[in-house]
Amino acid sequence: MPPPVSMAETSAVYMAASVIRNAKRPLLIIGKGAAYAGAEEALRKLVEQCKLPFLPTPMGKGVIPDNHPYCVSAARSRALQFADVIVLFGARLNWILHFGLPPRYQPDVKFIQVDICAEELGNNVKPAVTLLGDTNAVTKQLLEQFDKTPWQYPLESSWWQTLREKMKSNEAASKELASQKSLPMNYYTVFYHVQEQLPRDCFVVSEGANTMDIGRTVIQNYLPRHRLDAGTFGTMGVGLGFAIAAAIVAKDRNPGQRVICVEGDSAFGFSGMEVETICRYNLPIVLLVVNNNGIYQGFDADSWKEMLKFGDATAVAPPVCLLPNSHYEQVMTAFGGKGYFVQTPEELQKSLKQSLADTTKPSLLNIMIEPQATRKAQDFHWLTRSNM
Amino acid sequence: MPPPVSMAETSAVYMAASVIRNAKRPLLIIGKGAAYAGAEEALRKLVEQCKLPFLPTPMGKGVIPDNHPYCVSAARSRALQFADVIVLFGARLNWILHFGLPPRYQPDVKFIQVDICAEELGNNVKPAVTLLGDTNAVTKQLLEQFDKTPWQYPLESSWWQTLREKMKSNEAASKELASQKSLPMNYYTVFYHVQEQLPRDCFVVSEGANTMDIGRTVIQNYLPRHRLDAGTFGTMGVGLGFAIAAAIVAKDRNPGQRVICVEGDSAFGFSGMEVETICRYNLPIVLLVVNNNGIYQGFDADSWKEMLKFGDATAVAPPVCLLPNSHYEQVMTAFGGKGYFVQTPEELQKSLKQSLADTTKPSLLNIMIEPQATRKAQDFHWLTRSNM
Amino acid sequence: MPPPVSMAETSAVYMAASVIRNAKRPLLIIGKGAAYAGAEEALRKLVEQCKLPFLPTPMGKGVIPDNHPYCVSAARSRALQFADVIVLFGARLNWILHFGLPPRYQPDVKFIQVDICAEELGNNVKPAVTLLGDTNAVTKQLLEQFDKTPWQYPLESSWWQTLREKMKSNEAASKELASQKSLPMNYYTVFYHVQEQLPRDCFVVSEGANTMDIGRTVIQNYLPRHRLDAGTFGTMGVGLGFAIAAAIVAKDRNPGQRVICVEGDSAFGFSGMEVETICRYNLPIVLLVVNNNGIYQGFDADSWKEMLKFGDATAVAPPVCLLPNSHYEQVMTAFGGKGYFVQTPEELQKSLKQSLADTTKPSLLNIMIEPQATRKAQDFHWLTRSNM
Amino acid sequence: MPPPVSMAETSAVYMAASVIRNAKRPLLIIGKGAAYAGAEEALRKLVEQCKLPFLPTPMGKGVIPDNHPYCVSAARSRALQFADVIVLFGARLNWILHFGLPPRYQPDVKFIQVDICAEELGNNVKPAVTLLGDTNAVTKQLLEQFDKTPWQYPLESSWWQTLREKMKSNEAASKELASQKSLPMNYYTVFYHVQEQLPRDCFVVSEGANTMDIGRTVIQNYLPRHRLDAGTFGTMGVGLGFAIAAAIVAKDRNPGQRVICVEGDSAFGFSGMEVETICRYNLPIVLLVVNNNGIYQGFDADSWKEMLKFGDATAVAPPVCLLPNSHYEQVMTAFGGKGYFVQTPEELQKSLKQSLADTTKPSLLNIMIEPQATRKAQDFHWLTRSNM
Repeated sequence: MPPPVSMAETSAVYMAASVIRNAKRPLLIIGKGAAYAGAEEALRKLVEQCKLPFLPTPMGKGVIPDNHPYCVSAARSRALQFADVIVLFGARLNWILHFGLPPRYQPDVKFIQVDICAEELGNNVKPAVTLLGDTNAVTKQLLEQFDKTPWQYPLESSWWQTLREKMKSNEAASKELASQKSLPMNYYTVFYHVQEQLPRDCFVVSEGANTMDIGRTVIQNYLPRHRLDAGTFGTMGVGLGFAIAAAIVAKDRNPGQRVICVEGDSAFGFSGMEVETICRYNLPIVLLVVNNNGIYQGFDADSWKEMLKFGDATAVAPPVCLLPNSHYEQVMTAFGGKGYFVQTPEELQKSLKQSLADTTKPSLLNIMIEPQATRKAQDFHWLTRSNM
Repeated sequence: MPPPVSMAETSAVYMAASVIRNAKRPLLIIGKGAAYAGAEEALRKLVEQCKLPFLPTPMGKGVIPDNHPYCVSAARSRALQFADVIVLFGARLNWILHFGLPPRYQPDVKFIQVDICAEELGNNVKPAVTLLGDTNAVTKQLLEQFDKTPWQYPLESSWWQTLREKMKSNEAASKELASQKSLPMNYYTVFYHVQEQLPRDCFVVSEGANTMDIGRTVIQNYLPRHRLDAGTFGTMGVGLGFAIAAAIVAKDRNPGQRVICVEGDSAFGFSGMEVETICRYNLPIVLLVVNNNGIYQGFDADSWKEMLKFGDATAVAPPVCLLPNSHYEQVMTAFGGKGYFVQTPEELQKSLKQSLADTTKPSLLNIMIEPQATRKAQDFHWLTRSNM
Repeated sequence: MPPPVSMAETSAVYMAASVIRNAKRPLLIIGKGAAYAGAEEALRKLVEQCKLPFLPTPMGKGVIPDNHPYCVSAARSRALQFADVIVLFGARLNWILHFGLPPRYQPDVKFIQVDICAEELGNNVKPAVTLLGDTNAVTKQLLEQFDKTPWQYPLESSWWQTLREKMKSNEAASKELASQKSLPMNYYTVFYHVQEQLPRDCFVVSEGANTMDIGRTVIQNYLPRHRLDAGTFGTMGVGLGFAIAAAIVAKDRNPGQRVICVEGDSAFGFSGMEVETICRYNLPIVLLVVNNNGIYQGFDADSWKEMLKFGDATAVAPPVCLLPNSHYEQVMTAFGGKGYFVQTPEELQKSLKQSLADTTKPSLLNIMIEPQATRKAQDFHWLTRSNM
Repeated sequence: MPPPVSMAETSAVYMAASVIRNAKRPLLIIGKGAAYAGAEEALRKLVEQCKLPFLPTPMGKGVIPDNHPYCVSAARSRALQFADVIVLFGARLNWILHFGLPPRYQPDVKFIQVDICAEELGNNVKPAVTLLGDTNAVTKQLLEQFDKTPWQYPLESSWWQTLREKMKSNEAASKELASQKSLPMNYYTVFYHVQEQLPRDCFVVSEGANTMDIGRTVIQNYLPRHRLDAGTFGTMGVGLGFAIAAAIVAKDRNPGQRVICVEGDSAFGFSGMEVETICRYNLPIVLLVVNNNGIYQGFDADSWKEMLKFGDATAVAPPVCLLPNSHYEQVMTAFGGKGYFVQTPEELQKSLKQSLADTTKPSLLNIMIEPQATRKAQDFHWLTRSNM
């Protein structure tokens, strides 16, 4: 029996449509609640019919494909900061969305919350309209309003122009970073090459710090419910379990479908021994360990040796550092899978190609990156809040 | 800001209306969820328009007045036992509704659940239709269906005839009990005289065992959210706190409104000292202690003395017995309120009249009843379940 | 099977004896742990043999009789403040003992802790010696030391002189307060007259604020394990339950033994309805309600009426005030016990005499005292701590 | 400040000594409480002076060296089953000691419990004597008794003869198993060769099922507090953390001291990634993975392939099976430590020798044993209880 479905109050839907119609700088945010509700079709229709810019949350990625022309992920900070009306579809104003507060948002931004849970409405912010109900059903209610009285947000508006320009410049900056030839590689180079080869229908599992955060901006999802990451609570150690679960599901439902599990080296350390399980049942998983010798930042092997010379590394190395040049790929070969030690873009392209082509064995690519590599410059510090 | 409201899925509403239309022996049950949702107007319209029999739960009493011609409380067991379609409006299938199971219900009865909480749908029974949403909003959705395609359940049906006959015979039996002249009085006599004098707009608070159960069948409510009893969890000791809270609310909102607090003697013992608070703030509360010298049953004073003669009452008296002829009214006079020791119908009439007339002081009527008094014969044992 | 007994390490006992021998201003504190361990005989021997001043904690009262010449309760603050060596026998440095910290104690006071629980040793303070073991067994170990090498603390020391003088002046101050003829009575007058008549072997139960604190200083215990009060956690509402339990024990073990339950009016309000239980089983309890119309302080009836004139007492009366002149004795007569409304020393003497003489019924004395009555001037505020 | 020490009651010590003197078949059990209390010297003196047989619990091993002539570990079941007096020194009657119940014990065996915790005395069994106190202090109290009135249990008694015979036959059976030449090796062969080379002062850490249970019987401890295993609650996953902690302690206190960590392959899977930490800080740990391809029992590689042929191994392999022939040693080499794949006694001897000789790197020996290998025949099933 499917779960019971509830809809929003008719008058509230009407009011929400009206607020959207009057928006100067509208933005839709698509959360994992929309994915769970199966709202992909209705949301796509709403976005395309009204020509509205949208932004997915980490696990809302793929509800509408990341490469949709109205997806403004590449201008995320800009979009959040200047929108005057934001509609949250099954997305909540937690730390991932900076709590809905300035300076990441306009102080007078109007939030419209679509959520299945009454207790979540009005958390953190005072919303302009609340739509309590199943996200799919409520999206259809909104569509009805825009069917009755059609309306489109003009693509030639200065808001759309701002967003498009920002996306262009951000994408250029990413591409610039991705094309750097210096070695070890940086995050963007790695993810650029990964993105190029990923099958459109694969599951993407990801956990880590920079690895998860930057990876999410480059690696695209095209299908709903095909991305699993550490999510709302940022729990490390879930990645390999997620990958195994996704592979078991895929095996029955869609044989041939691959699971790509993108792990930071520290994240991989939490449950790396699950590689034994992956090999035991020969699951169609490709593991990418993006290895910077630590959490956020590590040392290169020479600096590490230098430290040991001066005394006990226990004392001098920060606890976020891991052993430089760990050969995580051997944790895979230890159990009969394929392992690759990857230091250049060419090695990355080649080994990823082989891994995806070989459907008989799991594989692990241990991808060495610059230990001090970091994100491109950000407008805001992580977790920026007005009152901190 | 009022809480957000959700509605049921349109197709489910349509299906529910269709199940109701096809019912041979329909029944509506109105729970406290309907009271909280403010569904009184919509429910009354539905009941009257479709001519459907209804039953309130303890705290659903008054959503539609208890003396409404379509209220079948006086045929409660019969109504539950033979209905083929039951619509629950904010009422849940807990012990108060005998878990929705045979032999108290037909094995194939179709339940339609209207509830604000998804997790409550499908508890205990497999419902025919679930309507997830605010009870007031969902009732209006049902009304729309019956406005589009009007329908009435025939008052001349054999179901209505059965119910009317059973109500008649039950009411006659109650009246017969109420009119008994023997002393000490029985429960029905007491409640009959109380009911005769109660102001229509008073709050009724009640706790106890038989006192609460029988009192509920005789004392009528005419307004929603004006009855407070031990409710779903049957917690004893809440009565005087409820009465004080209701009195504080009434004082500001509707001066002159009275609170009638009907207590069993055992229930009163849990927090009887709150009489000091009532007197300290001179709250407009009339306390009725229906005193049978124990829980369910006690001893009369002579039997008690007899037991003491033969030894230590600690050893021989069951722990549910209380001291015979306790003068609870003196607990009220101790703090300056009025107290009445009531042994006859005449004394009851007179002292209640005085208490209601005197708006300057709280009062307590200690109403002595037959220690072995009990309910009239029941069709089922308490908490009957098929698998017990 | 009696619980297993452990003793302290021989060397620690030796060290403790040596610290005591070298004390300039020694003090023993006897806690309820000593009572539970049955250490009364050993402790009395130690006190008398070494001529050491001692102080009981609330439930340590009676381990050695309160009227023992070496009991320095009447100089409690002085004794705690200037002692240089303090031996705790089953007593813990919680709020009742002001956490063992200045300014209530010398900064360099040496504590010797005798306790059955290792985790309690060294709590709050760094003890000079810890004696882990059964309090009775450890006291005997100490006695052995003082048997081997006898030693006495000189009664003519300036410490004993200081303590004796302070006791004298405090006792004089109490007597002065007790003899005041003004009405309503004060706490000291009440407790003086109660103390005069109490049987030496009665149980004393007590709860309240000033009632418990002042009562404890005046009413004496002569037997171990015969005082029950709200104790370490100061939980109100336990008094009548304690009294009933003590009466049930006394009934079998020592018929004729009385239970005296001294209650503040607020404390009585927590479980006053238990009077019904007391009457039902005719328990040999004399209840004294020391009634000041509130918690710590109340209003007299005239001031209360004045407040009501100016508006709603709910708004103006502090929540610690109770209804003036409540007739708590009627809560007893309501259930057939004897009740006395007591306003003068003569009434108190007479009604207490009658209550103690009448072994056929429980009784309650509602003793009216001055609503603003308080303790005699104290050296320290309640719960004084150096860092507060 | 050292923790406070308590001693047992003198009379109880006397009674315990008397029960021991009158024992026909005495047995001492030395638990980890004895190790924590530092009772090694006193216990050794007691054992040798009175010539009493003793048995260590898993973490009591080494309090007296395992190769002491009075250690009857090799006749453990026999000793427990027929002893008439058992003295527990800091050992508790939990599942490891079969709850102290028949058929593993005589129904009328007399237990003497020495324990620091009163609540543990009398658990499961009714002891003959309880000695509440610090195990070291109480052992000394017992020694005093046997100093005052010397006593020895005769080595020529039939109980000592029985034990010596059983030890001889059990040791012969173990030696027989250890000397089997068939491959893959069995547990006894592996542990025999490990025991031969272990430094006397090393820490031994162990976790697993058969690996821990059988290993404990063969690998000897010579020093107190030098064995760490999954202990009372049998928690898997603690081994590598224990080993790292022991290595950190050893580094400072006794450089050159080695940590030997004996792991079952399943146990290693819980936290095998900690090998990275071991290598990062270059800790002096030798890891032995005793690999039978599963928990209790696994499959060999050929049987596993056979299963895969017939379908999905997910479906057919029991969940306790692990991937056959996993190369756990590569998990070590992945991080720069030394790894050995060991299939024969000769390889085991050689690689263990190299690992112990090389103080510059941690190492891991992946020791392949017969997947169906098990313990030698046991008198009782695991966790035998009379009432199961």
